[in-house]
Amino acid sequence: MYRTHTCGELRIENVGQKVTLSGWIQTIRNLGGMTFIALRDRYGITQFVFDENTPDQIKNQLEELGREFVLKITGKVVERSSKNPKMPTGDIEIIAEEITILSKSEIPPFTIEDETDGGDEIRMKYRYLDLRRNPVRENLELRHRMGQEIRKYLDGEKFMEIETPYLIKSTPEGARDFIVPSRMNPGEFYALPQSPQTFKQLLMISGFDKYFQIVKCFRDEDLRADRQPEFTQIDCEMSFVDQEDILNTFEGLAKYLFLEVKGQKFEEAFPRITYEDAMKYYGSDKPDLRFGMKFSEITEIVQGKGFVVFDSVEYVGGVVAKGCSEYSRKQLDALTAFVQRPQVGAKGLVYVKCNTDGTYKSSVDKFYSQDDLKNWADSMQAEPGDLLLVLAGNKDKTLNTLNVLRLEMGDRLDLRDKNKFAPCWVVDFPLLEWNEEENRFFAKHHPFTSPKEEDLSLFDSDPGKMRANAYDFVINGVEIGGGSIRIFNAELQQKMFKALGISEKEAEEKFGFLLDAFRFGAPPHGGIAFGFDRWCSVFGGSESIRDYIAFPKNNSGRDVMIDSPSEVDEKQLKELTLKIVK
Amino acid sequence: MYRTHTCGELRIENVGQKVTLSGWIQTIRNLGGMTFIALRDRYGITQFVFDENTPDQIKNQLEELGREFVLKITGKVVERSSKNPKMPTGDIEIIAEEITILSKSEIPPFTIEDETDGGDEIRMKYRYLDLRRNPVRENLELRHRMGQEIRKYLDGEKFMEIETPYLIKSTPEGARDFIVPSRMNPGEFYALPQSPQTFKQLLMISGFDKYFQIVKCFRDEDLRADRQPEFTQIDCEMSFVDQEDILNTFEGLAKYLFLEVKGQKFEEAFPRITYEDAMKYYGSDKPDLRFGMKFSEITEIVQGKGFVVFDSVEYVGGVVAKGCSEYSRKQLDALTAFVQRPQVGAKGLVYVKCNTDGTYKSSVDKFYSQDDLKNWADSMQAEPGDLLLVLAGNKDKTLNTLNVLRLEMGDRLDLRDKNKFAPCWVVDFPLLEWNEEENRFFAKHHPFTSPKEEDLSLFDSDPGKMRANAYDFVINGVEIGGGSIRIFNAELQQKMFKALGISEKEAEEKFGFLLDAFRFGAPPHGGIAFGFDRWCSVFGGSESIRDYIAFPKNNSGRDVMIDSPSEVDEKQLKELTLKIVK
Repeated sequence: MYRTHTCGELRIENVGQKVTLSGWIQTIRNLGGMTFIALRDRYGITQFVFDENTPDQIKNQLEELGREFVLKITGKVVERSSKNPKMPTGDIEIIAEEITILSKSEIPPFTIEDETDGGDEIRMKYRYLDLRRNPVRENLELRHRMGQEIRKYLDGEKFMEIETPYLIKSTPEGARDFIVPSRMNPGEFYALPQSPQTFKQLLMISGFDKYFQIVKCFRDEDLRADRQPEFTQIDCEMSFVDQEDILNTFEGLAKYLFLEVKGQKFEEAFPRITYEDAMKYYGSDKPDLRFGMKFSEITEIVQGKGFVVFDSVEYVGGVVAKGCSEYSRKQLDALTAFVQRPQVGAKGLVYVKCNTDGTYKSSVDKFYSQDDLKNWADSMQAEPGDLLLVLAGNKDKTLNTLNVLRLEMGDRLDLRDKNKFAPCWVVDFPLLEWNEEENRFFAKHHPFTSPKEEDLSLFDSDPGKMRANAYDFVINGVEIGGGSIRIFNAELQQKMFKALGISEKEAEEKFGFLLDAFRFGAPPHGGIAFGFDRWCSVFGGSESIRDYIAFPKNNSGRDVMIDSPSEVDEKQLKELTLKIVK
Repeated sequence: MYRTHTCGELRIENVGQKVTLSGWIQTIRNLGGMTFIALRDRYGITQFVFDENTPDQIKNQLEELGREFVLKITGKVVERSSKNPKMPTGDIEIIAEEITILSKSEIPPFTIEDETDGGDEIRMKYRYLDLRRNPVRENLELRHRMGQEIRKYLDGEKFMEIETPYLIKSTPEGARDFIVPSRMNPGEFYALPQSPQTFKQLLMISGFDKYFQIVKCFRDEDLRADRQPEFTQIDCEMSFVDQEDILNTFEGLAKYLFLEVKGQKFEEAFPRITYEDAMKYYGSDKPDLRFGMKFSEITEIVQGKGFVVFDSVEYVGGVVAKGCSEYSRKQLDALTAFVQRPQVGAKGLVYVKCNTDGTYKSSVDKFYSQDDLKNWADSMQAEPGDLLLVLAGNKDKTLNTLNVLRLEMGDRLDLRDKNKFAPCWVVDFPLLEWNEEENRFFAKHHPFTSPKEEDLSLFDSDPGKMRANAYDFVINGVEIGGGSIRIFNAELQQKMFKALGISEKEAEEKFGFLLDAFRFGAPPHGGIAFGFDRWCSVFGGSESIRDYIAFPKNNSGRDVMIDSPSEVDEKQLKELTLKIVK
């Protein structure tokens, strides 16, 4: 038997007991006549003490021990003379009577502590050691808890978890597929799913009116900072529902998770904001609502005063930085430099200080009177002591820049507390999105999303104006999930494919089975998919999904620990009738 | 709003209520002046009735309806005059006031009823329709329930569910890998996991002492009847445990599932049988213990009596068929023919009828006296009224044939009730298995399985004799799971690779990361993996795992519904630097 207790379990009540613990040496410290070993496992740390009374045999064993050795130690629990209130086991320590070295350890390539000296690369190569560190372990514990609670909730709501296949068929829309050569069907390929979209729709047609799955999905994309070629979705679909039913159901899930996992109770309904308003007030379809600082457009009131920069543009607008009227020259210059960086790309930044004495000081005093500036301030609902930050230019571009500026000000003013959560729904997304390069429409959500009934008449006249029954779930400015009510008849689906430039032949080849299925009684249905990795990272207060994945890949799609991808045998390729041509 | 109730919900208490239901037309029957629609959803069937009082407008709508149309119907719940006690909703019916046709349906290619007229192929092509049938839906409901209960139990036991990657590295041992070309790393490939084996061992080295995952695995095998290229495992691993801990933990899981899912309580510990005994008494490492009929070896007592067939062989043994002494000539001939079929391959079958009057009648009366035959019967613990069935030949081959005969007799005597469950553990498997063709040892379980401590000395002298810390979990003669205590130090692991003919270079290339990890403090660990599809099928009383998979593939690895695998664009292959060479 390797242990009677874990390393996180013993308390003052256990004093006097003979116990056996197994774990890793976190630290071994020799303080003159006394030696202390802190033994670690998943549950905590327990201290072992060795002093002048320790038998020689054990003393000799101590000589060869080092960090990360795996020990089994039997001993007696005693009360500590100097207790450590920071450790749950800090009231006791153990006087060791027998030590067994289960495994030795070389000196690890980085120290296994909360704050480590290991860089990203070395920690990823030795990810199995990185996973020993508390913060990383806690991330996976959070993920485990989330997964279990999600299932508990959805099972309670009569959702069925149904596994859809991983070896499916390559589809044209969206990102690139990973493909898998079939040996039994030479020259043919499976594809790994980018999502179980078509299968969950088939399940609705099969009559499983509430489906979910926590499932791996795959996208062969050029990886940006926080993308992974394989990622996990909480994939959900319901039948006989409209948008309102879906939002209510999954708002229920989110509130349950906030309460069970984060201990935060949301009494009120989550805010719902249209895509149009989100763009207008936040310049983003995933607004961070932890703080206000909504945009105000002031184009009309600033034009015609002789300031040519403003007069010539489509849009002038800005945000109010509460209580920042005392910003120094240096601070204002820094903000200007920030928005002028190439990746943000503003030409300049206009400021107006609303002084506490009721006067105004701006960077455009030459063109605007005190009354003009008061007019701006009133229009933007600023008060004495506030600072107006104003940008001008092409409308879409400027809204986008204002978004970056708003988030930066949120950071500077400490308004983006990672322990505070502001969820919201963004609704009424456009159905289609024009792609300049390819000179055609793409589906904003995906080709199975239904247009709003009242916009159907625009299909032939002005398709770009059509709104979709599509919605996103956003927390703290991060898109956590998105979904839509689906098209459920073959004619409308074919019309949609046509609008997307997918030929009838191609549609038949790729989605024939779905169009077929629509012919045998498809129910109205819709759903949502949440990014599980991302939801975990937002709950954990991290910006990176990688921290919440046990074995992530790097930006080149490599697993540096197992050194994959790698070359395969010529024989293996031959069986697959494949040849590499570089 | 599409519904106020499901089609399985309304009872006599609801009489008088106005309700709205949505679902599929199961049947529509016109009986003279009355029309009945049975509306179906996942939850049940509710009857709607139309009679002379039905408004004309609705009567006209009825004309165009057919099976599998999707309707929304509003109406009033009334008590049925002739109740149907077989239906949960059989006390009531609904007088329809408004019908909306949500979707029309063409006539389905087979009838959507419990007993269908659709053959396997057509049902697979239209799997989304097949899934509408009650028995298929119930299979997936069982699977859902199993999945949730497994998680609930393991979470309660402090297991953590941790997702391991799907895009990993091709490994040499075991079945063929499916491989996935990497576009970002031209000429290199990922492999899909045959199991998360190495990752779960790394997680143990990381200190996650209780891990599980319900996870898809992939094997590119030539598919036998009941194999799938992708299948689901309940994958588990624990640290600081020996075999006893693992068996107890997962016996707990199995008992929990038997109780929660099948309503069967197992008070006693599951039988444990060594591999040696399983082969000796049942000729199989997965004995069906729903019935006895253990083999008795009688080689010694039958030899030397002048019957040359018995005298010349390695093994003579048989089974006792209780109460079958009155078997007719025809029945005995049929049994003989059964064991002589090429796929069974026995030369012949010797029988002894133990007559109720105390005499014996056998097919070898010429060679054996009544006393001899009494001796056989006593040795095999037969009683008057029983029938002895005896086979002879090479030992392994005959044990195998006796196994087939025993199972056949079990079927003929109705001893294999699919609602009765006989679980057991098979333990002490051999470590290695000699492969005649390749003239080398293979790992019986897998290369990470540890030899029994007491057999370690055989490693150099007689490796084939070594027993492993390996075990299988068997229900009703079906292997549900298997596992082992793992090797946890690099030297022994390398010795094992060597015994398997895996060179040091190859081991380093394929498993270097695991051998590396062993150098930094690996805990003793072991685990088990259950075939989830198979466990579901055994619980469901089916012989086929395919019935418990939502979208299975056929024996050529094809999904005939989506027509996959399929060809991909030349462009796609080019991006992957691949060319097809047939």
